[in-house]
Amino acid sequence: MNDSIDGNSIIVPEVVVQRLPHYLNILSILQVEKTKIVSSEQLGYLAQITPAQIRKDLSYFGKFGKQGKGYSVNILVKRLREILGVNLQWEVCLIGVGRLGRALLSYPGFAPEGFNIIAAFDSDLKQIGQQIGKIKIKNIVEIEEFLQSSSIQIAIVAVPASVTKDILNQLYHSGIKAVLNYAPFTPLDHKDMIIRNIDPVASLQSLTYHLKENN
Amino acid sequence: MNDSIDGNSIIVPEVVVQRLPHYLNILSILQVEKTKIVSSEQLGYLAQITPAQIRKDLSYFGKFGKQGKGYSVNILVKRLREILGVNLQWEVCLIGVGRLGRALLSYPGFAPEGFNIIAAFDSDLKQIGQQIGKIKIKNIVEIEEFLQSSSIQIAIVAVPASVTKDILNQLYHSGIKAVLNYAPFTPLDHKDMIIRNIDPVASLQSLTYHLKENN
Repeated sequence: MNDSIDGNSIIVPEVVVQRLPHYLNILSILQVEKTKIVSSEQLGYLAQITPAQIRKDLSYFGKFGKQGKGYSVNILVKRLREILGVNLQWEVCLIGVGRLGRALLSYPGFAPEGFNIIAAFDSDLKQIGQQIGKIKIKNIVEIEEFLQSSSIQIAIVAVPASVTKDILNQLYHSGIKAVLNYAPFTPLDHKDMIIRNIDPVASLQSLTYHLKENN
Repeated sequence: MNDSIDGNSIIVPEVVVQRLPHYLNILSILQVEKTKIVSSEQLGYLAQITPAQIRKDLSYFGKFGKQGKGYSVNILVKRLREILGVNLQWEVCLIGVGRLGRALLSYPGFAPEGFNIIAAFDSDLKQIGQQIGKIKIKNIVEIEEFLQSSSIQIAIVAVPASVTKDILNQLYHSGIKAVLNYAPFTPLDHKDMIIRNIDPVASLQSLTYHLKENN
């Protein structure tokens, strides 16, 4: 995880990777609006990121813009979609079918982007066996067996804080490579499992940083 | 939004501000584990950020670490809590009380961190008037009047894509300063309203970036 050049392969910093979907989001909207060319200033303004950072981030993936000319929206969208693997289909399992888990199961935004929740697990006996849409909730004790006989690489975790660490360890040992974690942040020592934390409190705190300053 | 030094006040880049709650999260866990000193290498490893970036980020707020000695966990936690305004109480309103909105209304993580949802709005006549915990859902048409007679600065938005732009504009004109947005990203031209987007698809795409590479 550094930005040194190692032969021909450049390791892109994780913080840059995390910004790419946001750039793609913005560029896709510009594309719909029939914008042909965007400057790093415009893109930076929309993304709330400095133009210099935009130029640096994109430079990891080749030369897109011409000095003083801006970026071609179409070319950049196409390239970012390739880089992020946006055209691929991914099977996903969901762990935890409480209020949040159920909201995620019925979230309409996943499938159009190629993310298909094909299995859901919980430890609550009242939930297990229930049918939600196409999904029948399975017992969490079955997860290792289930994952070992599947090719699922991605899990979405929406479990209480008290069991987060155990669940993440279990997923790791079952071969899960990537986790979208809605549970509280837990430091783990699994180098080959990547975790993205969705933490609304952290987002709110980065907002109140500014409100506090204004007071 | 740049990192130049303007007299005595340093403008901290937005990307840095957004990482601070994550650092605080990790440091708070280390504190509970009675860790006294942490190196930028350890912190970087836990945060999935390069040590150099950690050092640069924290340097905006003063000199915390001694070369080769690492950071005092207690001092850094205390300072980050001050910087982020974590000890303050904030009133928040929620727009959109569908499945996700309801999950957010009952999310136990907000109140302990000082974020109190005190009002909720929807446009669905079946929802309006319903009581959820202490909150009675109000009609969205009342929101401008409500906000103008309140001191609420923060809104959480969980509405469908089709109305996101209208809702964000309405919040802006009602004096909202900060938005946690669960709806799809919408570019807006409101310089003095800060929006944080929670976008699970973007997070998944930054995960599949790595899975794609492994394939």
